[in-house]
Amino acid sequence: MGGGAMTGSKAKLGNFFEDFAVGQVLQHATPRTIGPGDVALYMGLYGPRFAVQSSDAFAQAIGYPSAPVDDLLAFHTVFGKTVPDISLNAVANLGYAECRFLKPVYAGDTLIAASEVIGLRENANKTSGVVYVRTTGRNQHGERVLEYMRWVMVRKRDKASPAPTALVPDLAERVEPADLASAVPPLDLADYDFALAGSPYRWGDYAVGEKIDHVDAMTLEEAEHQIATRLYQNTAKVHFNLHEQAQGQFKRRLVYGGVVISLARALSFNGLANAFHVAAINGGRHVAPCFGGDTVYAWSEVLEKAELPGRSDIGALRTRLVAVKNRNCADFPLRNGKGDYEEGVILDLDCWLVLPR
Amino acid sequence: MGGGAMTGSKAKLGNFFEDFAVGQVLQHATPRTIGPGDVALYMGLYGPRFAVQSSDAFAQAIGYPSAPVDDLLAFHTVFGKTVPDISLNAVANLGYAECRFLKPVYAGDTLIAASEVIGLRENANKTSGVVYVRTTGRNQHGERVLEYMRWVMVRKRDKASPAPTALVPDLAERVEPADLASAVPPLDLADYDFALAGSPYRWGDYAVGEKIDHVDAMTLEEAEHQIATRLYQNTAKVHFNLHEQAQGQFKRRLVYGGVVISLARALSFNGLANAFHVAAINGGRHVAPCFGGDTVYAWSEVLEKAELPGRSDIGALRTRLVAVKNRNCADFPLRNGKGDYEEGVILDLDCWLVLPR
Amino acid sequence: MGGGAMTGSKAKLGNFFEDFAVGQVLQHATPRTIGPGDVALYMGLYGPRFAVQSSDAFAQAIGYPSAPVDDLLAFHTVFGKTVPDISLNAVANLGYAECRFLKPVYAGDTLIAASEVIGLRENANKTSGVVYVRTTGRNQHGERVLEYMRWVMVRKRDKASPAPTALVPDLAERVEPADLASAVPPLDLADYDFALAGSPYRWGDYAVGEKIDHVDAMTLEEAEHQIATRLYQNTAKVHFNLHEQAQGQFKRRLVYGGVVISLARALSFNGLANAFHVAAINGGRHVAPCFGGDTVYAWSEVLEKAELPGRSDIGALRTRLVAVKNRNCADFPLRNGKGDYEEGVILDLDCWLVLPR
Repeated sequence: MGGGAMTGSKAKLGNFFEDFAVGQVLQHATPRTIGPGDVALYMGLYGPRFAVQSSDAFAQAIGYPSAPVDDLLAFHTVFGKTVPDISLNAVANLGYAECRFLKPVYAGDTLIAASEVIGLRENANKTSGVVYVRTTGRNQHGERVLEYMRWVMVRKRDKASPAPTALVPDLAERVEPADLASAVPPLDLADYDFALAGSPYRWGDYAVGEKIDHVDAMTLEEAEHQIATRLYQNTAKVHFNLHEQAQGQFKRRLVYGGVVISLARALSFNGLANAFHVAAINGGRHVAPCFGGDTVYAWSEVLEKAELPGRSDIGALRTRLVAVKNRNCADFPLRNGKGDYEEGVILDLDCWLVLPR
Repeated sequence: MGGGAMTGSKAKLGNFFEDFAVGQVLQHATPRTIGPGDVALYMGLYGPRFAVQSSDAFAQAIGYPSAPVDDLLAFHTVFGKTVPDISLNAVANLGYAECRFLKPVYAGDTLIAASEVIGLRENANKTSGVVYVRTTGRNQHGERVLEYMRWVMVRKRDKASPAPTALVPDLAERVEPADLASAVPPLDLADYDFALAGSPYRWGDYAVGEKIDHVDAMTLEEAEHQIATRLYQNTAKVHFNLHEQAQGQFKRRLVYGGVVISLARALSFNGLANAFHVAAINGGRHVAPCFGGDTVYAWSEVLEKAELPGRSDIGALRTRLVAVKNRNCADFPLRNGKGDYEEGVILDLDCWLVLPR
Repeated sequence: MGGGAMTGSKAKLGNFFEDFAVGQVLQHATPRTIGPGDVALYMGLYGPRFAVQSSDAFAQAIGYPSAPVDDLLAFHTVFGKTVPDISLNAVANLGYAECRFLKPVYAGDTLIAASEVIGLRENANKTSGVVYVRTTGRNQHGERVLEYMRWVMVRKRDKASPAPTALVPDLAERVEPADLASAVPPLDLADYDFALAGSPYRWGDYAVGEKIDHVDAMTLEEAEHQIATRLYQNTAKVHFNLHEQAQGQFKRRLVYGGVVISLARALSFNGLANAFHVAAINGGRHVAPCFGGDTVYAWSEVLEKAELPGRSDIGALRTRLVAVKNRNCADFPLRNGKGDYEEGVILDLDCWLVLPR
């Protein structure tokens, strides 16, 4: 056995901390046309029941040209493209902020993604550093469909490399209500059928502090999260390579955090049936890993309510969406007396949802 | 941890026996556009090979505008919508009758479902009762695409609730042949290519009493039945929640009965390749549960043959479709000497199939 | 239990060696319209990232009417149709040759397949023989979209049947470069965006003898290969029937070899990102079986480079694509000192790939 000419030089091994510079823009491969097949697979993998995304007829009745694609399918598609360039050598995904959904995505749209490095800070141990990026997803017309900030801890190639000047960007605690409605056309609520949508509860029926146990749950299979994660062209090995993972800390493949988000969002239909649009993700923590065989439950808490400027048709709820594994959410598990996350909590997501008024 | 305002009040826990009244109409959520992605997933999950549903070119050659969606995909979609309202608190699914497929469903059609309560009868033990419904699926034009009667045993919320006046509807033993052809356009059989369809056998080639071992078999994985069942937006927990099921009678998730029907139907291609349309389900019993890891075989028996009024192009076969797990069907297993179903039988379905004459 | 009229006579048990004659043409069932759902499922099952197949916008920019379907999806679809007629009673799949992709396949196209028997040779033991076929896949316009030679060892029904005159066809060692470009329209490379495609390397950047470790790997689940194989309407029992396989040599289901090819091809993106088209398969060996739970890695070696007559836009690389299970490919495993395949090698595929110049 042995090497060949230019062995291995053309396969990418991902960027290391030294490869990033503030102001650098990374154009990510691969453009991806989202089609009706992706919509069906998304349905089969998570089981969402929000009427606007499920039915062309329903969406058209209220003012969409056709059913928009699930917001999170668009998010995962854009996110997946960034993995080979941003997080292949990540030690940890540290957070998201200011994720805004700017334009609806329809079947047939092609998404591309680019990221700008907006901050860098080497860790004290000199073996890794934090990279901050602003990632933008655009459609085939060049329109921005979504945008988010993300920070990741990335390994250094060489401990001896000099540290860049530290720059930590200011990130908003939450997206402003004025920025939440751009992906929702003016709606004709006279034709919004609440019986078909599955619930009579509108924006006005929810109160700050209200908690909702979403009751239902899903046990996640390895084949399911792998199919989902490949659908997004996300190449992070930890999700796919049992042979390698079996030697690692968890001895198993890790479920992509976006799968947990989508599962919890789909479960949240039971109690938030009219919250048809995720308008923003203000922040999120993947509190603990999720594995094949885990059963995911979810609950929500209303954190804030906002009217949307110039919009009498819709309003926004800021909610905390919590996913929990292998225990139900009747007692709304979150943190214990010491302030630590309780056993079983796997996701704590802060988002803005849009509902009819 | 701890409660919140109006805790849990907006999540649905399903109806109990007391919540039903004869004459009541339940409009089910969520409208669902069936697209080409659903067609492909249906193919990937079951592997049907009937040419009319598999090929636009084949369907168009004989008189369809395009390949219609598999009849059972339409059935499962309509059925799935009824689960949150009808059977979330079911003790048992007791039966179906008079299921008729009335209009073809094409990719792009949106299906909605409503059920009318047509009968009620409390059980002697006062802890549950039988609910009879007529469920109708309609497309985006308001046309009925399918209809069926179903009866389910549903728990009472409170043993002390008064019993309703008992009403048990008359249900036909089988759909009349005159009612079987409405979903089949007039066919041009000159262009029905029997070689492409996979078999030379027409309606006239089958005899009452004939039994067909479909030979092939499929081992069912948890991921497969979960993806299928979510695709139909069916929310019955027994199919998805291992954490809860592990405490129950079977210690495992139960496969949705509709998955077994679709699998047996797909297997039945080998021997019934030209039976391209399920025109009616006269009745069916899920004799025993099916679990992930089970291998499903199937066989059919021709029970009756019927000409269809005004149709010289097609005829109907009434067949018993039997699904059996973990044993082959070379000896056509059904009932033992005592009249009980034999070990391994999981489905006994009485249906009308349409074939070219 | 018990027999019935004409029991079992209508289900097909597949052809035996005696059923084949040189010159015989078998028209295979079932015509299959490839739609956007198949494209999405193919993505979810393997995770390919080649821009031309992934994006309508990218494909249109360089001269395609829309994104063509993955070449191997078309191949598996055509191949799957041949199984019930050619290889249901196969002892072994011995080889492929001269597989050429002749026309692009687009979503909406309907594929049919026919095979001509071009050779026969009974084995010395008189229990089986080798059948050589030329299989042609056509679209709904009757145009040939792909063609390949294949030989299979098929059981005899009866050892006493007379042997046919032996005829072994001449098969080319490789497809001629002049025959490689027919499925690629003239491309406008000014609009081929190498950043979006994921790599700067063009045809000219690769050297004969160069080896590429594709680095990434995928652990294959039973549900995944079953869904894939059903999508192709491939009915070979060894892939689906655990109940029967548990009694056999491997005690497990076997993964369809085409799944391994598609997985290795998808992995090969990392290092061959611009090799957007499989123009031919010169030959291939499924060296060892692959099972659910195996982790598949891949590497490639450039065997030959060819200019394509009349084409200044594209060139061809002949590569060996090797798939290996449960070990990585950093040392390019292939054969040991004795010339035997090394432990872990499961696929050795010789193909022509097309890249921009």
